[in-house]
Amino acid sequence: MTAPPPAVSVRFSINQMTVKQLSLPGLVEACVRLGVRGVGLWREPVARYGLDATAKLVRDAGVEVTSLCRGGFLTAADAAGRAAAIADNRAAIDEAATLGTDTLVLVSGGLPPGSKDLAGARERIADALSSLAPYAASRGVRLAIEPLHPMFASDRCVVSTLDQALAIAERFPASQVGVVVDTYHVWWDDRAPAAVARAGAAGRIHAFQLADWVTPLPAGVLNGRGQLGDGSVDLARWRSLVDAAGYPGPIEVELFNDALWAGDGVALLEETVRRFGEVLA
Amino acid sequence: MTAPPPAVSVRFSINQMTVKQLSLPGLVEACVRLGVRGVGLWREPVARYGLDATAKLVRDAGVEVTSLCRGGFLTAADAAGRAAAIADNRAAIDEAATLGTDTLVLVSGGLPPGSKDLAGARERIADALSSLAPYAASRGVRLAIEPLHPMFASDRCVVSTLDQALAIAERFPASQVGVVVDTYHVWWDDRAPAAVARAGAAGRIHAFQLADWVTPLPAGVLNGRGQLGDGSVDLARWRSLVDAAGYPGPIEVELFNDALWAGDGVALLEETVRRFGEVLA
Repeated sequence: MTAPPPAVSVRFSINQMTVKQLSLPGLVEACVRLGVRGVGLWREPVARYGLDATAKLVRDAGVEVTSLCRGGFLTAADAAGRAAAIADNRAAIDEAATLGTDTLVLVSGGLPPGSKDLAGARERIADALSSLAPYAASRGVRLAIEPLHPMFASDRCVVSTLDQALAIAERFPASQVGVVVDTYHVWWDDRAPAAVARAGAAGRIHAFQLADWVTPLPAGVLNGRGQLGDGSVDLARWRSLVDAAGYPGPIEVELFNDALWAGDGVALLEETVRRFGEVLA
Repeated sequence: MTAPPPAVSVRFSINQMTVKQLSLPGLVEACVRLGVRGVGLWREPVARYGLDATAKLVRDAGVEVTSLCRGGFLTAADAAGRAAAIADNRAAIDEAATLGTDTLVLVSGGLPPGSKDLAGARERIADALSSLAPYAASRGVRLAIEPLHPMFASDRCVVSTLDQALAIAERFPASQVGVVVDTYHVWWDDRAPAAVARAGAAGRIHAFQLADWVTPLPAGVLNGRGQLGDGSVDLARWRSLVDAAGYPGPIEVELFNDALWAGDGVALLEETVRRFGEVLA
């Protein structure tokens, strides 16, 4: 006799990067077996498996795609770079629509080489969204600006706080542009709870993601996200804040962690489901 | 014939950690030879050389001690830990007075083991300062709360922004408690310029430190501070902001960088003087 699988919250969603050692069929099969109803997908592995094949795989399995990562990288200062970014983001919007998700996560991009102008880069993001947001709406897709931790401000995302993300999103209808609340990126920010409330009241929380904060950070700081409960983030509090803001949607767990990736993917998914139940109880 | 030494701004100060490969006599000798008028010292190397011997060394050389690093680590939740921290900070205040500097830099401390309560930790800092600030004033020393980059929030400093630092400092007279503006820690923060203006107007900028932001960050993220001009920070703009806020004091360069420490310390000091002149011009 094996232990029964843990009960899975209907709101739990597993971001594909958390268990990137799994193939797409392996991930979907494990979701079905464990009762996980949602997955967040990434463009690169979807492209490798095939966009239409992925759409059929999840549809046939009855697994919901809760978000697609990622569009963005909209900070190029030159015309060619900006045109390429717009084209790539339109393609990402089309992919999201094909996969049946209404949410495209945007990682906005860092400073162009040699630039020190954060404010200018943030303004170029807003400028690019003025053409992308209506296009996304025409495909039934909402754009979700994800503030990344300030340690990524130079090379990955000049949008570092929920307040900054909202300052851009609020230029557009809430049905077109909102924000991602990711605990890993905002947990340290004493202004973030008020921003969560403001975003929720306006219907602008388009995604909610969980990861814990653990140290020491690894070189490059990208793949050091902690399993739920292993770190310093009061995850139950953040879930309460986001719930209180009126967000009823999926809660994705998105971990980038070399140590977790080195193990078995299905066991990691089961452990993540278990931790989710424990820390959010 | 050797090249003449670069002209050195009267406001330039070299933080000892930037050239930690130098002994204290080596550092002071290089400062005198190059015309560097100020040094920021650290308690540990001062203790190794001897507190009184260090005070005599800098006094005899006519070099000003612009700050002492560091007090702080005031977030312990247990009575014994808090008492030990108070005692250690009183000792640090005494050392600052002996060295003839009016500024003790505070790195406030991270979360206690197992704690997820950032707000509570910040409150304990303010509580500790209510006894330390008057004592410091009685010794002619001002306490300078240094917000550290949010990537240090869990394990080193729960005070992550200038606004947070000011929220604590403003409970005390400006002559007793102020803040450190360090470009490495605040450069990403769109609210920091307003905080600099507010701090300056109240006479609460007690120290101004420079370092550049470079990536990729090394493991542990402590020793990746960039030489002036090598990174993403618009240092000239920050100097203008701090000047415009009415701060007339020393500008310390504080780099923690394994690659820079591997080279010759005097050459590094000369290069830092040169960069300071270039990037702040």
